[in-house]
Amino acid sequence: MTAKRANQSQSKPAEQFLAVRSRTDELCASLSDEDMVVQSMADASPAKWHLAHTTWFFEAFVLDRFLDGYEPVHEQFSYLYNSYYNSIGQQYPRPDRGLITRPSVSEVRDYRARVNDRVIDLLAARPSRELEQILTIGLNHEQQHQELLLTDIKHLLSRNPLGPAYQEQISGQQQAAGVAGWRSVAGGLHDFGWDGDGFAFDNEGPRHRRWLEPFEIADRLVTCGEFREFIEDGGYKRPELWLSDGWATIQADGWQMPLYWLDGGQALFSLGGFRDIDPLEPVVHISHFEADAYARWAGARLPTEFEWELAAAAVPVAGNFADSGILHPRPAGEQPGLFGDCWVWTSSAYESYPGFRAIPGALGEYNGKFMSNQYVLRGGSCATPADHIRSTYRNFFPSGARWQFSGIRLARNAT
Amino acid sequence: MTAKRANQSQSKPAEQFLAVRSRTDELCASLSDEDMVVQSMADASPAKWHLAHTTWFFEAFVLDRFLDGYEPVHEQFSYLYNSYYNSIGQQYPRPDRGLITRPSVSEVRDYRARVNDRVIDLLAARPSRELEQILTIGLNHEQQHQELLLTDIKHLLSRNPLGPAYQEQISGQQQAAGVAGWRSVAGGLHDFGWDGDGFAFDNEGPRHRRWLEPFEIADRLVTCGEFREFIEDGGYKRPELWLSDGWATIQADGWQMPLYWLDGGQALFSLGGFRDIDPLEPVVHISHFEADAYARWAGARLPTEFEWELAAAAVPVAGNFADSGILHPRPAGEQPGLFGDCWVWTSSAYESYPGFRAIPGALGEYNGKFMSNQYVLRGGSCATPADHIRSTYRNFFPSGARWQFSGIRLARNAT
Amino acid sequence: MTAKRANQSQSKPAEQFLAVRSRTDELCASLSDEDMVVQSMADASPAKWHLAHTTWFFEAFVLDRFLDGYEPVHEQFSYLYNSYYNSIGQQYPRPDRGLITRPSVSEVRDYRARVNDRVIDLLAARPSRELEQILTIGLNHEQQHQELLLTDIKHLLSRNPLGPAYQEQISGQQQAAGVAGWRSVAGGLHDFGWDGDGFAFDNEGPRHRRWLEPFEIADRLVTCGEFREFIEDGGYKRPELWLSDGWATIQADGWQMPLYWLDGGQALFSLGGFRDIDPLEPVVHISHFEADAYARWAGARLPTEFEWELAAAAVPVAGNFADSGILHPRPAGEQPGLFGDCWVWTSSAYESYPGFRAIPGALGEYNGKFMSNQYVLRGGSCATPADHIRSTYRNFFPSGARWQFSGIRLARNAT
Amino acid sequence: MTAKRANQSQSKPAEQFLAVRSRTDELCASLSDEDMVVQSMADASPAKWHLAHTTWFFEAFVLDRFLDGYEPVHEQFSYLYNSYYNSIGQQYPRPDRGLITRPSVSEVRDYRARVNDRVIDLLAARPSRELEQILTIGLNHEQQHQELLLTDIKHLLSRNPLGPAYQEQISGQQQAAGVAGWRSVAGGLHDFGWDGDGFAFDNEGPRHRRWLEPFEIADRLVTCGEFREFIEDGGYKRPELWLSDGWATIQADGWQMPLYWLDGGQALFSLGGFRDIDPLEPVVHISHFEADAYARWAGARLPTEFEWELAAAAVPVAGNFADSGILHPRPAGEQPGLFGDCWVWTSSAYESYPGFRAIPGALGEYNGKFMSNQYVLRGGSCATPADHIRSTYRNFFPSGARWQFSGIRLARNAT
Repeated sequence: MTAKRANQSQSKPAEQFLAVRSRTDELCASLSDEDMVVQSMADASPAKWHLAHTTWFFEAFVLDRFLDGYEPVHEQFSYLYNSYYNSIGQQYPRPDRGLITRPSVSEVRDYRARVNDRVIDLLAARPSRELEQILTIGLNHEQQHQELLLTDIKHLLSRNPLGPAYQEQISGQQQAAGVAGWRSVAGGLHDFGWDGDGFAFDNEGPRHRRWLEPFEIADRLVTCGEFREFIEDGGYKRPELWLSDGWATIQADGWQMPLYWLDGGQALFSLGGFRDIDPLEPVVHISHFEADAYARWAGARLPTEFEWELAAAAVPVAGNFADSGILHPRPAGEQPGLFGDCWVWTSSAYESYPGFRAIPGALGEYNGKFMSNQYVLRGGSCATPADHIRSTYRNFFPSGARWQFSGIRLARNAT
Repeated sequence: MTAKRANQSQSKPAEQFLAVRSRTDELCASLSDEDMVVQSMADASPAKWHLAHTTWFFEAFVLDRFLDGYEPVHEQFSYLYNSYYNSIGQQYPRPDRGLITRPSVSEVRDYRARVNDRVIDLLAARPSRELEQILTIGLNHEQQHQELLLTDIKHLLSRNPLGPAYQEQISGQQQAAGVAGWRSVAGGLHDFGWDGDGFAFDNEGPRHRRWLEPFEIADRLVTCGEFREFIEDGGYKRPELWLSDGWATIQADGWQMPLYWLDGGQALFSLGGFRDIDPLEPVVHISHFEADAYARWAGARLPTEFEWELAAAAVPVAGNFADSGILHPRPAGEQPGLFGDCWVWTSSAYESYPGFRAIPGALGEYNGKFMSNQYVLRGGSCATPADHIRSTYRNFFPSGARWQFSGIRLARNAT
Repeated sequence: MTAKRANQSQSKPAEQFLAVRSRTDELCASLSDEDMVVQSMADASPAKWHLAHTTWFFEAFVLDRFLDGYEPVHEQFSYLYNSYYNSIGQQYPRPDRGLITRPSVSEVRDYRARVNDRVIDLLAARPSRELEQILTIGLNHEQQHQELLLTDIKHLLSRNPLGPAYQEQISGQQQAAGVAGWRSVAGGLHDFGWDGDGFAFDNEGPRHRRWLEPFEIADRLVTCGEFREFIEDGGYKRPELWLSDGWATIQADGWQMPLYWLDGGQALFSLGGFRDIDPLEPVVHISHFEADAYARWAGARLPTEFEWELAAAAVPVAGNFADSGILHPRPAGEQPGLFGDCWVWTSSAYESYPGFRAIPGALGEYNGKFMSNQYVLRGGSCATPADHIRSTYRNFFPSGARWQFSGIRLARNAT
Repeated sequence: MTAKRANQSQSKPAEQFLAVRSRTDELCASLSDEDMVVQSMADASPAKWHLAHTTWFFEAFVLDRFLDGYEPVHEQFSYLYNSYYNSIGQQYPRPDRGLITRPSVSEVRDYRARVNDRVIDLLAARPSRELEQILTIGLNHEQQHQELLLTDIKHLLSRNPLGPAYQEQISGQQQAAGVAGWRSVAGGLHDFGWDGDGFAFDNEGPRHRRWLEPFEIADRLVTCGEFREFIEDGGYKRPELWLSDGWATIQADGWQMPLYWLDGGQALFSLGGFRDIDPLEPVVHISHFEADAYARWAGARLPTEFEWELAAAAVPVAGNFADSGILHPRPAGEQPGLFGDCWVWTSSAYESYPGFRAIPGALGEYNGKFMSNQYVLRGGSCATPADHIRSTYRNFFPSGARWQFSGIRLARNAT
């Protein structure tokens, strides 16, 4: 039993493993089985699927590799819960993940427990550096799904006209946010990307050299109040502010404000349900197109991912992450650094770094094959676990994605 | 409490009401909350929605009309659970019915109980002929949803690669089915449609006169074995056998056999899960297009709805209905009459009878507004309650619908 | 040379052949090659395609059958210009007909001349009853395409913001149209369909008996002025007036008035270009859905195709046909009978008559395979050749089709 | 009359203007009016539209700006022939450009002549540096449309099963192409982008510094023979070779070989019609996805746009351009440099250079607003005018575009 094991004294890897695994379970504590089975759009997945897929990940990449003759818990789970690893086998179609009412949530919880037990046993019986490395990938993978689980359930609940809440409403401390200031950063030849000792994803390396011109970056995120000014100034009606694809998208989809805004921009839907918008809180749930248009309207631009990284390398990794439990960006005065609250869209297309090589084998499909038509976001959000983020971390989504906690930090050329 | 009331001695209308209402609940006995919340396609609805919608029907058409100042159980349920009655108000979009994880199944069951109680109270306190008439519509409406609940849940479970069963597999008694015989029916001037004392839907009347030429109708349904011959003879590859729209449909959707057939036509998915096909059982889950093409291949045709009614008026309303619990058509030798096992597609477009007038008010939207681009099916199926069907009963679906228990009974001109 | 032959004395069939063939050419006299190559929607075909397809029809059904060892003019024309005869071979995709810039209009005219010559030769050399029968089908087929050529070119020109005209604007004589009167028709057992000596399409027979209740039919078509009242009374905004499919269609396509109406219903596009609407002219270019909704709003209904035929059998086949050259319905006072001006939608789904058998062979695909999800129109229009129409003639289009000259004649039950 | 003017002695700008303008006309010499009006897909435009749009460009940006009170040739042409300049006004929908049969080709040619005359007059009467600058943009713009006119007409003709040719088949001299060699290029800090005296588009600047690692670039393009090996090795069936979006695209669209390849890769459609594939000619008409997959299969990668530019800056701008009249890439042995034959896909997303500012006003919409979800191509093609290309030139198309002359030049990291 996993519960029992949690009380025993464990090795550090085992402790970390159980901590991350149980955190995922905790995120579902307020959800019913019905909440957990439904898929609200093709981009999102059911909470139950997240529970099962992260478990399958350990089955496929740990148990199946490190245990001779390992028999999977169910012969069809690899088909049902493999997300996109073609090297491992075919996958049940992504848009249909919400049709799988059986196995039940309870059976998936049992699946988690059984795989947890086998992993813990394996760690105790045959610890190795290679095992720990792959385990670490699995745990970072699961942390990514913790964030997706939250953004996916938010999307589902938002589609319900009753506006059900995931948790109690938590109010930030409202503070006056002055005009955003600019922090100057010197240009020159700098190194970017990861080469530290700890864990980083393959797409964060190799560390390499780039030349940057001097620039300035805003000392806080763009607020809802500022974004409302953009709207009131005809922001969504002036094609000259938009990329051509962005203009086409807002016409086709009828966007007139950020996702989850209501009542003409007076209220929003949060994980705590409907509430009034605080003009000082960061604007969030906007697409790359909207971030780009806002920046143009404001006479500024989005930072490149390298500008952001250079600025962020100089400040501590601290901010409003999932660990605070607020699960929403805080009002502007409360954000001192560059991390947390919401991911910021950069102007950088998601590409490989010079000399990039994907991990060999199926894990090589983790990041590399998505380097096409996506844009990089940086900094982590209120739904990201605090120990998951770093200055070299690269998140990426297509230009039109809005259901992540994505916002804006402006940049401009040095004057 | 409904349970308590069920034990009390009740008036006949109250007894009938509770019998139909509890039958709907019983149909969900083997379903989990997860099974009941998911919607597998736009045409289908979640089981939970069926439970709630049929309850709303009594709220809207009975309680709201017959109880002054009636306060609905929830102010938003009319929006969530109104299917298509524009006269009553706007409706939550049909394709999104599966997104409503809250209210939960348990809350919907409570909704059912509360409405049941109010109806029973009303029947006891203020019985009237008008009340009973509308109650009867509501119960017939609920019986229709009992059948849809079964066909919708079948569709959902069929999409799961694990092939979960709704109930235990029930085998029919296999019997030799000889070559289908033909029953001759004399033509002439006949009356069609309902004018009896009991209940019938508005689309079954008025009773009116039609001239029919003499014809012959098959004495049993087309079997899976016969349909397999059609396939083996290139049935799905020969455009000359198909209506133009039908040919376009099978090309576009890649149909090569009936819905739920697998393994090149050796097995099928039933409410009891996967099993081998019995060549003697009636073919079912085919579209109007496939029924029409088969008939052409067989050198026969589909009956008109009036030919079927004329033949059926002479035989008892008996057959394999939902009450048998088999929930699948039985092998051919076991079907003596014209009713049950599966609905048969007729060649008749669904149109109003001469002199037809829809019921005034919102209930007028029940049938009349669908008289367009649909075809009539007759006879009831293994998922129809036995006391719901009669010889004048008109079911209707678009030409391409396959998820109902729909099959073929051939006809031909008298020689 | 066809021109030369036209001057020679010809047999009657040859004269008729050349008359119809040259009429088609004349319809293109005002069109440029550019007008003739473009396809404005999947439902419409380029004028050049009509010229070529009607020619191919004579190649495939006359020359290829009656001339041993006939070598087609071009080996690929059967692929390019076969419309939908699967028995003859594959067809170039219908929505792509506008991509065929070569052969040119001039080459297609040459194709017409060469086939004409061979047909005339054949008629002279080997006249036979069978040949003449198929020739007659070909000429009636070509007359249908003459009408389609006009409605297709109208659609194309209407998409051009410059509003180019096909011909000079021709004004009808405006006359006061009083309130529409009702003509009473006795019911009873009547015969319907064709059994005369002359030509009729297979779908007009066999002649058969039907019982009709007594009814009344309007003595004129519904006018633009009347239809505008319907619009002003919220006709397009009141779901209770519409079939469910119709309501969905007008929402999805944003219909708020008839096709080709402009400026909030003050003007329209005709084959003579833009002009003001005359409130007394018949409303035209409406779908079956709109006809049905108008009739409901007006407290009447559409006639069945048999009611129309019974009334029409008693009046002469006279009216405003293509031969007048007006190519638009005339104001109401000018229409005395039941024919011409515009086709009228009936409430009858397009089905086979009892005992119907399609012609054997490829010509059997002419009509029968379209008996699905279409509605019957009767009476001919201002774009129909006068000698092409009769009281048993059945035209058919899907419920949403609007680009034909289709309008409304009301009916109601006898009081 | 333009023809007359062409014989007069002209200023250099006037000469250049007339030279480019008449070159566009010449490209249409072999096309019929029918060829010139049709649009074969939403991405392509009719040849007539290219003739008109490039003329409108001079009307809108030259005549309307430099001539007080200029009256446009037709008040609606700005609506019809504005491509995407929202600052100037609304545009007729792009996918409908093929519906405009009037004005005719002849009227558009007259439009060209009239605008030409006014521009020549203006140049003579009021020459200025600003006028010449905008004229130069207009001529470079027209040269881009010369290339599009060729690729668009190729697409149109390819859809015709008769395979009509735009011009005579021109065979390249076949020569043995050895194994491709690698050219080493040193890395370091280099300047990129335009800062010369002549014309360049705004997206080619500002010139700026970048750090590059040393790399190698292939000394010739990938050939059809090599690409066929990729196919035969299962290239289109192995998901591990593809970007995730690329794999989805080839599944959805059923791609199994380059666009215009036929007969299982033995033949192709060229502007000279159908012919056998020469294994030594460069592969062309492939998407960014296919280029990327091929490179991965070959154990190499695509160059970045900066690697290509660095290599190209060292070689002369010479190669097989439109001026040769071949209008197809030549066999491998014949290409010595880095320019011409076909554009090469780079791995670089199309982004702005540091410090980029779009031109103020409507011309600012020329390039900047497309910097989203497109990839950069470099080097010019057999359809590019020779004097239009340079080492800093950036072409850009979405990942799935195949109808341009786009191919592959491999790169790899220095060993």
